[in-house]
Amino acid sequence: MKPIKVGLLGLGTVGTGVVRIVEGHQHDLLSQTGAAIEVAKVLVQDKSKTRAVAVPADKLTESPWDVIEDPEIDIIVEVMGGIDLAKQYIIESLERGKHIVTANKDLMALHGPEILAKAAEKGCDVYYEASVAGGIPIIRTLIEGFSSDRITKIMGIVNGTTNYILSKMSQEGAAYEAVLKEAQQLGYAEADPTSDVEGFDAARKMTILGTLGFHSNVALSDVSVRGISQVSKEDIAYGKRLGYEVKLLGIAERNDDRISISVQPTMVKMSHPLASVNGVYNAVYVYGEAVGETMFYGPGAGEMPTATSIVADLVAVVRNLKLGINGQRGFSPYKEKKLKTDEQIASKNFILLHVEDKAGVLAQITQVFAEHEVSLESVLQHPNALNPKAEIIIITHDANQAAMKKVLKQFEAMDVVHAIKSVYRVEG
Amino acid sequence: MKPIKVGLLGLGTVGTGVVRIVEGHQHDLLSQTGAAIEVAKVLVQDKSKTRAVAVPADKLTESPWDVIEDPEIDIIVEVMGGIDLAKQYIIESLERGKHIVTANKDLMALHGPEILAKAAEKGCDVYYEASVAGGIPIIRTLIEGFSSDRITKIMGIVNGTTNYILSKMSQEGAAYEAVLKEAQQLGYAEADPTSDVEGFDAARKMTILGTLGFHSNVALSDVSVRGISQVSKEDIAYGKRLGYEVKLLGIAERNDDRISISVQPTMVKMSHPLASVNGVYNAVYVYGEAVGETMFYGPGAGEMPTATSIVADLVAVVRNLKLGINGQRGFSPYKEKKLKTDEQIASKNFILLHVEDKAGVLAQITQVFAEHEVSLESVLQHPNALNPKAEIIIITHDANQAAMKKVLKQFEAMDVVHAIKSVYRVEG
Repeated sequence: MKPIKVGLLGLGTVGTGVVRIVEGHQHDLLSQTGAAIEVAKVLVQDKSKTRAVAVPADKLTESPWDVIEDPEIDIIVEVMGGIDLAKQYIIESLERGKHIVTANKDLMALHGPEILAKAAEKGCDVYYEASVAGGIPIIRTLIEGFSSDRITKIMGIVNGTTNYILSKMSQEGAAYEAVLKEAQQLGYAEADPTSDVEGFDAARKMTILGTLGFHSNVALSDVSVRGISQVSKEDIAYGKRLGYEVKLLGIAERNDDRISISVQPTMVKMSHPLASVNGVYNAVYVYGEAVGETMFYGPGAGEMPTATSIVADLVAVVRNLKLGINGQRGFSPYKEKKLKTDEQIASKNFILLHVEDKAGVLAQITQVFAEHEVSLESVLQHPNALNPKAEIIIITHDANQAAMKKVLKQFEAMDVVHAIKSVYRVEG
Repeated sequence: MKPIKVGLLGLGTVGTGVVRIVEGHQHDLLSQTGAAIEVAKVLVQDKSKTRAVAVPADKLTESPWDVIEDPEIDIIVEVMGGIDLAKQYIIESLERGKHIVTANKDLMALHGPEILAKAAEKGCDVYYEASVAGGIPIIRTLIEGFSSDRITKIMGIVNGTTNYILSKMSQEGAAYEAVLKEAQQLGYAEADPTSDVEGFDAARKMTILGTLGFHSNVALSDVSVRGISQVSKEDIAYGKRLGYEVKLLGIAERNDDRISISVQPTMVKMSHPLASVNGVYNAVYVYGEAVGETMFYGPGAGEMPTATSIVADLVAVVRNLKLGINGQRGFSPYKEKKLKTDEQIASKNFILLHVEDKAGVLAQITQVFAEHEVSLESVLQHPNALNPKAEIIIITHDANQAAMKKVLKQFEAMDVVHAIKSVYRVEG
């Protein structure tokens, strides 16, 4: 059988990894698919640049059309990143009946439905395992492994940069700014870290996971997002004393047919498996009605983990090609999307208040919770004897967001409350 | 399209769960496969028995042939357990062109190669996700998710009973016998717990995982097995003080083209993700050359997790049926099996010795290690001041098993060594 020809859009670190694996594992790939796989053309920005892998000069091109319009190429692997150009090239490739493997989370979060619809129209595959949690086969797991279950909750540590920062802050008692600077020096955080630290990257991934988990077209704008830039080392220290680690969690929840998706720093009980996921690792916890609790842990990024996911997708597409069954992965968002209202979103909460240090204040505070029917799990007064300010930490039972907003608004108006220092969702 | 008919062999707890899911999720199953799925016939031992699910009397039969020979039935789900009869029924079903979904680890560990060969001959599917770590889609992950990677190590907590016992011993400082008795009362351990506590159940699962991970036909007899019945609460306490949890680990390792598979109680460093897997949960840690570290966590058993895995397999087989591609899952053990020798199996080790309490003993002990070129990571003398016996704990660097056996043999012959109290493999 003649080799399956692959066109590569981009030859950065991940593209280089793909070339390395495809060339180094020919025997394994042949055993698994019955076909040789050949990287036939590679789109690069500058043909003359020196490369970490040897790709023959006649395979390199600076024109995307050399790749997209090559009739010999069956599969396009998009690893160039960015949104508009990548989308254009993918749509044009699908128009020409080519199958797509992509690692582009931004693209899939924003234009996934349009791309998947075009693929369905053309009978083409679009595989995108590497777009979420690089080395963890979570998309395959949601589509196939949980196909007979109903997922009610997905909680993910899906951004390695913020998990590295929060882990370091927790382990070393260090402040956010110092750890961010260190992460930037080590290359774990970008010069402009906004997308990571403000939770936008995690929100894109949760858009993809929510869509798959709940069979509804979740949009990026459906995700409520809060990042980690306001997390203080004091919050982390107080959390620890109460048995929690602060993690940036993406949370997608379903009750009956209503869903909510959010990203926020969260106090996670130490006994929960997500609490011990540290450093740049990612983990996705999935709760299914039948299966119960499961968790998938692994590297979230990196040249080789991401490239491995891409090549696993490539193997799946090649198998489909040989079997003549492309475009039939069997996933479609067949459920109408209904978002929860604030009244329907419930969680436990951690609240740290600075209050006036006089008799009766605690009673006034707890009265506010009672008025809005928020019941309390624990109240800790003066948690820090060394701190002259009167501090109160409150952990609520499950309370809905509308009630919590009213409680916090009332605190803002009270003279005895000097500051609402921090509010966290609590899980585990 | 007419419904796909399924024959069920067995209606115990797992079979009941399968009926519940298939009946309760018809809409989801239809959306995912484009076909209705119907449990058409069920083999039971006693038709007159009261059941937890309502199955119409005319679907129940006490004769396996009513199921196996029914020309309308496409897929046989084997959840009766046991080995000889189950094997016979599966082979006879394959002979008649029926596809198989089974949860039977004993059968797959012992007769997997024969069953898979028969399936290949007949162009039939055999799916067996539920046979290892019930609710964790680890088989699908190894076959598909890691298809482009080379796995070098699989470490699994794959037996819930022993993990429950070891977790309890660790959390409560309790003795093995007491916790085992409690586990038996709670139904977490069988009246005859041998298969679990002596590691045989874990060995069967590691046979299956080793075969998949290394693409070689691993046999049950290739697995070296040691159970947990000799683990003392003192060992666990010492391990904790040094930063380890004792876990029953199945370990499958590959270096170059040599493999080894073992099951043994192991000191796992607390920072390793496997160390915090507690209770009846299972977890499988997989190391791939490209992807690095990954871990999959979830319920190891139970009616609904296991039934969910079975129905996910059922969905995959139905999709294959509709696409006409059964029998082409693409896994075959294409690599010749080469087992490591004792000289090639290396690990760190934890050794607890009772020795004569006099000057020069430690020098004699460490001299034995030096003679056999085993280097030491740490030595702890008199770790327990309350214990009148002179105790020494030694943790080695990576040492090969042949050398370790010689060291231990020499200790046995030494007058100053009163007892080799315990020896554990160390990981993490």
